[in-house]
Amino acid sequence: MDLMKKAIEMHSEYRGKLEINYKIPVVDSYDLSLAYSPGVAAPCIEIENNRSRVYDYTIKGNFVAVVTDGTAVLGLGDIGPEAALPVMEGKALLLKRFANVDAVPVCLDTKDVDEIVRTVKAISPTYGAINLEDISAPRCFEIEDRLRRECNIPIFHDDQHGTAIVVGAGLQNALKIVDKQKENVKIVINGAGAAGIAIVRLLLQIGYKNIVMCDSTGVIYQGRTEGMNPIKENIAYITNPNRIKGSLSEALVGADIFIGVSVANLLTEEHIKSMSSDPIVFALANPNPEITFENAKAWGVRVIGTGRSDYPNQVNNLLAFPGIFRGALDVRATDINESMKLAAVEAIASLVTDEELHEDYVIPKSLDERVAPAVAKAVGSAAIETGVSDLFQQPLKVEAGV
Amino acid sequence: MDLMKKAIEMHSEYRGKLEINYKIPVVDSYDLSLAYSPGVAAPCIEIENNRSRVYDYTIKGNFVAVVTDGTAVLGLGDIGPEAALPVMEGKALLLKRFANVDAVPVCLDTKDVDEIVRTVKAISPTYGAINLEDISAPRCFEIEDRLRRECNIPIFHDDQHGTAIVVGAGLQNALKIVDKQKENVKIVINGAGAAGIAIVRLLLQIGYKNIVMCDSTGVIYQGRTEGMNPIKENIAYITNPNRIKGSLSEALVGADIFIGVSVANLLTEEHIKSMSSDPIVFALANPNPEITFENAKAWGVRVIGTGRSDYPNQVNNLLAFPGIFRGALDVRATDINESMKLAAVEAIASLVTDEELHEDYVIPKSLDERVAPAVAKAVGSAAIETGVSDLFQQPLKVEAGV
Repeated sequence: MDLMKKAIEMHSEYRGKLEINYKIPVVDSYDLSLAYSPGVAAPCIEIENNRSRVYDYTIKGNFVAVVTDGTAVLGLGDIGPEAALPVMEGKALLLKRFANVDAVPVCLDTKDVDEIVRTVKAISPTYGAINLEDISAPRCFEIEDRLRRECNIPIFHDDQHGTAIVVGAGLQNALKIVDKQKENVKIVINGAGAAGIAIVRLLLQIGYKNIVMCDSTGVIYQGRTEGMNPIKENIAYITNPNRIKGSLSEALVGADIFIGVSVANLLTEEHIKSMSSDPIVFALANPNPEITFENAKAWGVRVIGTGRSDYPNQVNNLLAFPGIFRGALDVRATDINESMKLAAVEAIASLVTDEELHEDYVIPKSLDERVAPAVAKAVGSAAIETGVSDLFQQPLKVEAGV
Repeated sequence: MDLMKKAIEMHSEYRGKLEINYKIPVVDSYDLSLAYSPGVAAPCIEIENNRSRVYDYTIKGNFVAVVTDGTAVLGLGDIGPEAALPVMEGKALLLKRFANVDAVPVCLDTKDVDEIVRTVKAISPTYGAINLEDISAPRCFEIEDRLRRECNIPIFHDDQHGTAIVVGAGLQNALKIVDKQKENVKIVINGAGAAGIAIVRLLLQIGYKNIVMCDSTGVIYQGRTEGMNPIKENIAYITNPNRIKGSLSEALVGADIFIGVSVANLLTEEHIKSMSSDPIVFALANPNPEITFENAKAWGVRVIGTGRSDYPNQVNNLLAFPGIFRGALDVRATDINESMKLAAVEAIASLVTDEELHEDYVIPKSLDERVAPAVAKAVGSAAIETGVSDLFQQPLKVEAGV
């Protein structure tokens, strides 16, 4: 039976993938009087007197909402909140499976940016953090920015930062193989959606200097007029130091690294041959990458990563988001800031030892159980060091993790 | 150790009462490809093409949000959304324990009626039904009314209807003991909050004719000017057929039934003596009733019910809401209408057989495991008969239940 048919069968048999359970027994009326009225009044009163105690007595401190408006689901586009629900349940499942985070889907019946911000803010007292998911660009940038400013819990748009973090980790290891330095390489990124924009921003944070971003119109540069928006204006300002113009093909000449978050089968042999020696390619279009693994190898790509689980070097958000939420929740972070993202990059990259490092192993396997705890620990420590941990106000050593 | 201390200890030990689990194994990358990308695209596409299939492939059909703004929590009043969370988790626990409903708390950081309506509507695609909880009167009436009109899933404010349904069931059995008819009895209800108003409305539906409602100002009557609001204007219009005025004491003269949803230790021996023969009293103030069980018995009350689990005839919402949600979800009801509420009254009342019926047993025990399935079946059938079931459009026989 093919995968799609099997997936339908499985979803239909279980009617979704999540269930809500209770952790304490309720057998007799004494149990009832502790879990509910009148005993439950005791924690209520303590929280009323000191709001931070909500973390001691409720699910909040381990509870994440996976929020979407259903506008950019997988590669399917704007399919609506109900059709997005299987993905959000899947995300919640993965948060539990890999990081013991209790997560629930929240699919919104609105695409209005103000309304989404207002709604998420209104429901935020319930949760310890919010995972934004599958919200289309450029709306996702404003929604995340405003929620980060207005909420006192971490807000994290995984489609942006999860992908960027794993790409950052993979690049760090790939550069070791080709013996190049991040300060000197030229990177071309194709695709100016949520992931592409976040990759640019994170790579600049990491210390890459020469990044050129392309969209379907070609190179993004200061002064371009066609197909721009405020986000791309910002990209033009912070990238492309040599002010190049032209097509993707022109941008690729002499590039050391190509990162695609665009469409299938885009790269030709000529593209690869025009790049610098030992090219590195992360071809992340799903389900079919910008270049197949086989073609990449045949045409001389030194390190090829894709989004596919059936080839080496899978760039999978799963390496990032469970540990990031675990780490943020463990130290009761009020934000997931740039330092925490950089710590996640480092943690993921360093799980591939120099002895193990290989062209076909620059990124840990998606199901590697060591990843989430390592990321959690690094992210928690970074939160403490940057002063966004509500639990550890001093730069203490913390044993965070699952 | 006293109950409150033990409750704190229990809540602190478990950090809340709920957890989110997944129902399918995720061990290898094949599992992952079914539960998440790429397999998950299959149910997404099917739901996009036919929205009702969301009930086949996701948690929605068994998923309830327990929504509060924290303004009327237990007897504690307006304690805020965080402090309300232990109660909402408790409610979700009970829905699972007694009716296998997956429920989660949603505590809102707003008290604005428009904003609450907008927020609940925005998150509604995720859930199969909404349980409104501990929202203060009279705001709760408008919020429920508007949401019922604007959402295509059932909206049920348990503080109103749960209590009213159990009172209705208890009264039905109590009247058998004193051999009186609902058409002829005089009922005095003290307390014009959410529960009091809902009790009046449900008892009128059931067929009671002579109901007088009092608040802290005394009898509510047409033309009263002090302490009125639109809801009380409506109450004045639909109750008090003899247009009586005056105090609670005056109203009680000759009454057959007193229902209190007000304050502790309100009723005196004189009050009881002024009532008709064989008085029935449901004294529901929490934790201390309007009259103690002992005083009621000593002063000649024939049937006394309270909210307390340590005395006979406990009026506990737990007898109603789990079965009501189970029944509504089982037939995919789009509303919880008056017929469904009346069916719940009948189902609860009829679990006390004529042989078992006794002054101290007019209401089933709160932990009686038969109640929720019986209520679910009755409520589901009523939904079908009144045409609000999306699954059964014809008046079919349905085997609903847990």
